[in-house]
Amino acid sequence: MSSSTSQKVRVAVAGASGYAGGELLRLIAAHPYLDLTVTTSEKSAGSRVSSIFPHLAGIVDLTFEALAPEALPDRADVMLLALPHTKSFDAVATCLKAGKQVVDLSADYRLREAASYPAWYQATHPYPDLLRQAVYGLPELHRAAIQRTKLVASPGCYPTAGILQFAPLAAERLIDLRSIVIDAKSGVSGAGRSPALPYHFPEAHESLEPYKIGQHRHIPEIEQELGLLAQRGTASSGPVTVTFTPHLVPMNRGILSTGYAKLTRDLDQAALRDLYATFYKGERFVRLQEGDKAANPRHVRGSNFCDLSVHLDRRTGSVVTVAALDNLVKGAAGQAIQALNIMLGYPEETGLLSAGLFP
Amino acid sequence: MSSSTSQKVRVAVAGASGYAGGELLRLIAAHPYLDLTVTTSEKSAGSRVSSIFPHLAGIVDLTFEALAPEALPDRADVMLLALPHTKSFDAVATCLKAGKQVVDLSADYRLREAASYPAWYQATHPYPDLLRQAVYGLPELHRAAIQRTKLVASPGCYPTAGILQFAPLAAERLIDLRSIVIDAKSGVSGAGRSPALPYHFPEAHESLEPYKIGQHRHIPEIEQELGLLAQRGTASSGPVTVTFTPHLVPMNRGILSTGYAKLTRDLDQAALRDLYATFYKGERFVRLQEGDKAANPRHVRGSNFCDLSVHLDRRTGSVVTVAALDNLVKGAAGQAIQALNIMLGYPEETGLLSAGLFP
Amino acid sequence: MSSSTSQKVRVAVAGASGYAGGELLRLIAAHPYLDLTVTTSEKSAGSRVSSIFPHLAGIVDLTFEALAPEALPDRADVMLLALPHTKSFDAVATCLKAGKQVVDLSADYRLREAASYPAWYQATHPYPDLLRQAVYGLPELHRAAIQRTKLVASPGCYPTAGILQFAPLAAERLIDLRSIVIDAKSGVSGAGRSPALPYHFPEAHESLEPYKIGQHRHIPEIEQELGLLAQRGTASSGPVTVTFTPHLVPMNRGILSTGYAKLTRDLDQAALRDLYATFYKGERFVRLQEGDKAANPRHVRGSNFCDLSVHLDRRTGSVVTVAALDNLVKGAAGQAIQALNIMLGYPEETGLLSAGLFP
Amino acid sequence: MSSSTSQKVRVAVAGASGYAGGELLRLIAAHPYLDLTVTTSEKSAGSRVSSIFPHLAGIVDLTFEALAPEALPDRADVMLLALPHTKSFDAVATCLKAGKQVVDLSADYRLREAASYPAWYQATHPYPDLLRQAVYGLPELHRAAIQRTKLVASPGCYPTAGILQFAPLAAERLIDLRSIVIDAKSGVSGAGRSPALPYHFPEAHESLEPYKIGQHRHIPEIEQELGLLAQRGTASSGPVTVTFTPHLVPMNRGILSTGYAKLTRDLDQAALRDLYATFYKGERFVRLQEGDKAANPRHVRGSNFCDLSVHLDRRTGSVVTVAALDNLVKGAAGQAIQALNIMLGYPEETGLLSAGLFP
Repeated sequence: MSSSTSQKVRVAVAGASGYAGGELLRLIAAHPYLDLTVTTSEKSAGSRVSSIFPHLAGIVDLTFEALAPEALPDRADVMLLALPHTKSFDAVATCLKAGKQVVDLSADYRLREAASYPAWYQATHPYPDLLRQAVYGLPELHRAAIQRTKLVASPGCYPTAGILQFAPLAAERLIDLRSIVIDAKSGVSGAGRSPALPYHFPEAHESLEPYKIGQHRHIPEIEQELGLLAQRGTASSGPVTVTFTPHLVPMNRGILSTGYAKLTRDLDQAALRDLYATFYKGERFVRLQEGDKAANPRHVRGSNFCDLSVHLDRRTGSVVTVAALDNLVKGAAGQAIQALNIMLGYPEETGLLSAGLFP
Repeated sequence: MSSSTSQKVRVAVAGASGYAGGELLRLIAAHPYLDLTVTTSEKSAGSRVSSIFPHLAGIVDLTFEALAPEALPDRADVMLLALPHTKSFDAVATCLKAGKQVVDLSADYRLREAASYPAWYQATHPYPDLLRQAVYGLPELHRAAIQRTKLVASPGCYPTAGILQFAPLAAERLIDLRSIVIDAKSGVSGAGRSPALPYHFPEAHESLEPYKIGQHRHIPEIEQELGLLAQRGTASSGPVTVTFTPHLVPMNRGILSTGYAKLTRDLDQAALRDLYATFYKGERFVRLQEGDKAANPRHVRGSNFCDLSVHLDRRTGSVVTVAALDNLVKGAAGQAIQALNIMLGYPEETGLLSAGLFP
Repeated sequence: MSSSTSQKVRVAVAGASGYAGGELLRLIAAHPYLDLTVTTSEKSAGSRVSSIFPHLAGIVDLTFEALAPEALPDRADVMLLALPHTKSFDAVATCLKAGKQVVDLSADYRLREAASYPAWYQATHPYPDLLRQAVYGLPELHRAAIQRTKLVASPGCYPTAGILQFAPLAAERLIDLRSIVIDAKSGVSGAGRSPALPYHFPEAHESLEPYKIGQHRHIPEIEQELGLLAQRGTASSGPVTVTFTPHLVPMNRGILSTGYAKLTRDLDQAALRDLYATFYKGERFVRLQEGDKAANPRHVRGSNFCDLSVHLDRRTGSVVTVAALDNLVKGAAGQAIQALNIMLGYPEETGLLSAGLFP
Repeated sequence: MSSSTSQKVRVAVAGASGYAGGELLRLIAAHPYLDLTVTTSEKSAGSRVSSIFPHLAGIVDLTFEALAPEALPDRADVMLLALPHTKSFDAVATCLKAGKQVVDLSADYRLREAASYPAWYQATHPYPDLLRQAVYGLPELHRAAIQRTKLVASPGCYPTAGILQFAPLAAERLIDLRSIVIDAKSGVSGAGRSPALPYHFPEAHESLEPYKIGQHRHIPEIEQELGLLAQRGTASSGPVTVTFTPHLVPMNRGILSTGYAKLTRDLDQAALRDLYATFYKGERFVRLQEGDKAANPRHVRGSNFCDLSVHLDRRTGSVVTVAALDNLVKGAAGQAIQALNIMLGYPEETGLLSAGLFP
C-alpha cells in the first residue's frame, strides 16, 4: 500500500451493501493499485459504510450514495456493478457509452444468446448488440478476450464451480455430455442479505434445502460454457445438458459442487488427474487436490482459490468431480477483481493472494 | 406408560453408549410395552447411563455392563445389537441359539451374498447359513418377512434413504438402472461418538466433506434392494449400479439424499407423484411432500419419518428424488424398534409417533 | 393414547404458528388426556397446520383460523394463549369471563404490580383486578396456587432459568441481593419466527450478539420472584436487583444462564450443593448436575427439564450458578402444559417425560 | 510484497501445526518484510505444510521439521514460539542466549511472579531471572517496553479481551476492583486442534459449555495487568480479583467477553464512552463501537481488531463492558506479529490491516 493515491485507478462499486458488495470493498481496500471513490446502495444511501458493515470500520471511510450511473464516469475510471439481475442492463450501457471499463457481476450480460433471457430471466434483453461485446469473465477460459474487452460479465458462484470442474473433460470430450449431473451445495450468504423465512436462522440451521430443482438460472451459463469447450475443433459434438440441483446448507460461505458424468472412454485415476493437471497448469487460482483428497470449501474461505478434485468410479464407469470455492470471492468479488486486473494490465493475482481463513 | 412392568417385554441393548445406542435407550423408555433390562458398553462398563448420557438422567436408571452374549438370554426376551461391524457375527449367533429374537443394527447380516463381505467389509462371513435366515429390516419393503423371522438386519441410514427414494421407480423399471446417482449428505452424528480430526468441531463446521467416493460400504445394500425390486416378475432386468457419494455436513443429525436417474419413459410430474403416492399408500412413516416442496431433514429431526419428494427435470429427461430422515431414528434406532414392533405383534408405530423437533 | 377422545379435555391454542405455538401443538399431540380442537394464527389463517409446520404432517390434522376469543369457549375447555405481548390482555379477560381456565404464555399477567407495565412494556394494564387473580406459573415455586387459580401467567424462558438458578440462595438470603449478575445466552428460536436482519443466518451464525443490555423486559419478573423468596418470613431484606445481559448465540434452541453473586456467608461447595438438593427435592423437572459438571442445554433439547449446577469461587467469595433449559419447552410450551396438568388435576409430568434429543 | 527476499527478516515458527501456528504462517506470508524460513511441529515433522494445512497450498512452500532450538538461531533472525505451556521455558532461554528476539505465545513468561506458576500451572519456573526481562506483549499497554525488550510474552485470547475491556476503568479506579465478573465465550478453535470428546462436533454443536469455572489459567494474567493499571500513581488500591467463567460456544473463531463491575462513582453513558475513547485514542486495533451497539466477534473474524463497547446499567449501578476479538488473531498470532513489528521498528500495523471476513 505504498503507492500514492494519485497513481491509483479510481473504482466505483454500485450495489455495494450486499454481501458480494462488501467483499468488493474489502478486496479493493487491500489492493495496491485501486482506489475506491464511490459506493452506491439504494437502501443504505446516506449511511456510513462502517455502520452497514462494521467489519470495515477503520478500513473503508466512505458513505453509501444512491446510484446515478451517468455521474459515475466522472468520478471513477472503472466500474464494478453488483446490482440485482435486470438492473445492470442500463447501468452497463451508460458506463460503456462514457468509455469506461465495466465488470458486471449480474447475469445481465453472461448469456451469449439474447433469446435465452426471456426463458431464464423473464426479461427481454434491451441491448443485444452490447451482449456481443461482453466477455464471460472466467479468466481460466477467456483470459485473452478479457484483456481486450471493455465489458466483462463476471460468472456466478455455481457456474464457476460447475464449469471449472468439468472443463477438462468437456474439452476432451471424454464424457457423455448429456449425462452430466451437478449436485451443488451453497452457504446461506449465497442467498444475499435480505431476510426471508428460508434464511431465518432457526429454519436454515440443522437444515438442508434443495431448491429450484432443474430450474436454477445458473444452468444456461454452465451449459453454454461447457458446450463451447466441447465444440472446439469439431463440427458437432451436440449440446451439453446439465441436471442441476442447488442446496442451501448451514454454512455462511462456500460452495461445494459435486459433479457426475459417464465416461466415454476407459481411463484410470492417474490419467484423469493428469488431464486436470495439464489443463490447469500455471493457473494461480486453481488448486488440484493431492492424492485422493476431495476438495472442501473450508480450505478456500475468504480466498480466491477454486480447489478441484477428480475421482474415478470404475464400478459404474463414472467420473466424479468436486469443486470448492468461496461463493463471495472466486464466486463473485474476487473473480471480478481478477478480471479487472487483467483488463488493467496488472498481474492477475494482484491483491488476491491472501490465504483462506482456516478454521 | 400405564402398563405394569410385569407385562412388558424385556429388552437388552448391546453397544449402547454410542449415539444410536443412546437413541435406542430414549425410544425404549418412551415405549409402553418394552422394559429395558440390560445395557452393555465395552468402554463405559461400570458407568451409570446418566453419566455417559446426561440427557437420560431421570429417564434411564441403569449402569452399563460389559457385553456377555451368553448371559443376555436369561435377562432379556429380545436383543437389540448396536455393535460395530464384524462384532455382531457371533453375538447374533449366540442369541439365536438361545431362541431369542434379535434386531441387529450392524451390517453383519444385511447382505444376502456371503461372498460380498470380503470385498466390502474385508471379512469372511462365519455364518452363511444364518445369513439366509436374516431379513433386511426395511418394513416398507419386507414387512411380512420381518413378522416371521427371528433375525432382522436393520438397514443403515444411507440405504434407508437411497432405497426408499428409488423403490417405486425401480419396481416399475421406469429408469435406466445403470444411471442412478445418489449424492447423500449426513450430519456428523452419523460418524459415531469417537473423536477424530475430521469430526473435530473446527474442522467439520463451515465445511462440506465428500468422502469414500464410490467406495462406501452402504453401496451394496442399496444395489441389492433396488435390484430385487427391479427383478420382481421379470426374467432379467439386469443389475442396478449406483454411483454414490456421501458428504459430511455441519449438522448434528439428519440425512438428505438427492438421487438422479434417466427416465426410460416419458412421464409428467403428476404421474411421477402418483407413482410414489400409490407405492407408499398406508405407510405411516413415509411422508410424500406436498406440491413441489423438497424433503428436508429439519422436519424429521428426532422422529421416525422418512420424507420423500420426486421432481421431473424434463429438459434433461431425468428424475430427481429426495429423501430426508433422521440418521439416528429412521436411519437406526427408530427403524429397529419399528421392526421389533412387527416381530412382537404390536402396532408398528407403537412408541414411534412423536413429532420431529422443529426448529 | 388409549383414552378415547370423548374423555379428553378440549384445548384451544391461540397464536399457534410461532415456534412456541408449534411446540404446544407437538406436546398436546403427545398428551394422553388433551385433545386439540382449535388453533389460531392471524397470518396463517386458512392454511393447514402441516403446510406451516411440515414436521407435524401426519400428527396434527387441523387448519389455522383467525382468533375469535368470544367463540373459543364453546369449542374448548381450556385455553393456551401464545399471543404477542399486549395482545393477551383482552383475550384472557374474555376467556375468564366465560368461566374457562387459561394459561397465558405472554407477559401480560406476569407482573404483580400493574404499575410496572408502563415502564417495561409501554402499556397501561387494562385489567389490574385480573392481575391479582393471576398466578406466576412456575410450578416449582407456586404449585399450590396454580392448582387453585383459573389464570396462570406462564413464565418466559430467561426468567425460568434466572429464578430457578438463584431461588435457593435467595430464599436463604445467602447472597448479597444487589450483587446478582445474570449473563444469559439464548438460541435464535427465542427471537421468534419473523425474519429480520439480526436473525438472518449469515448474520447470526459465527456471531455472538449481546442485546438490550440492562433493559430486557424479563428483568422485572426475575427481580419480583427472587424478591418474594427473599422476603419470606422476614420484615425487610430489601429488594433484589439483577444486572442482566442476554446474548443471541448460534444455536436453534436452548438457554444457558450463568449467574453470579457475592456470598454473604462462608460456605463450602458441599454445603452449596446440599442447599440446592434440598430445595429441589422431589422436583421432577429440575436436575442438579452430578459432581462439578456444569449444566449444558445440549442435554435438555426438546425436553421439559431445567438442569442446574452451582459452583463456589472461593478466591472471590462468589457463587456461580448455571441453568440450562430448552427455551421452547421448559421456557415456554412445556412449562405451560406442566401448569395445565396441575390445574386439571393430572400428574404434573403427564405427557412431558420424553427425554431430550442428544445429540 | 515488492521487497526482495534478501532484505527481509528471517522468521522461525515453532509449534506451527496448531491453529495459532497456522495463523502465524498465514500472516507471515502476507507480511511485506518477513520471510518464513523454518516451521517446526513435533507430530507433523516431515509433512509438507500444505498437507497439514491445505488452505496454505500455493501460499507456503515448506516442510515441518522437529524442533531443535539450538539450531534455530542460525536459520532465523527472530523466533515465534507457539509451543504448549511449559515447553517454552527452555526454548526461550536457548533463543535469548543466542542473542535472538523472541515472541513467545505460551504462558511461560507472562506472569511477573515466578511464585504464581506452581499454583496455576503446576510447574516451577526454571528461569525466574528471564521472567524479569519478559514484557507482557499487549501493545496497547506496554508499547514502549516491547520496543526495548528481546522477550515478549504474548497474551492469551481471554486476557486480551478481559484486560482491554476493563483497562480504562481500572486505570481511573472508577469500579470496585473486587466486583469484576467476566463471562467469556470462545469459539472451539480456542481449544486447539487435538480431537477430544468435548470438541467432537455433535457434542459441541447446539451446545454451550461452561468450564473451569473460577479456575481458568488466564485469570492471573487479567488480575496482574488490571492490578498494575489500578496501582499506577497510587500507594495502594488493593489487588484486583476477577470472577471468571469461560464458555465453549458453537463457533469456529471468536471471543466475546462480557464484563460486569459495580461503579464507585456516578457516571453517565456519555462519560463512560468518553473515558474509553480517550484511553484508546490513536490505537489502530481497538475500535470503540458507535452508539449503543455492542461488540460482536462476527466483525473481527480473521482480523487483528479488538472491538469494544461500554454500557451503563444505571438501575443497578453497574457498568457492562463487551470485548470481541478473533482468538487466533488479536488473541494469538496477530498480536504476536503486532509486537514483532514494534520490536523490529516497523509500523505497528504492517501486514495486519486486512479487514475481517464478514459474513
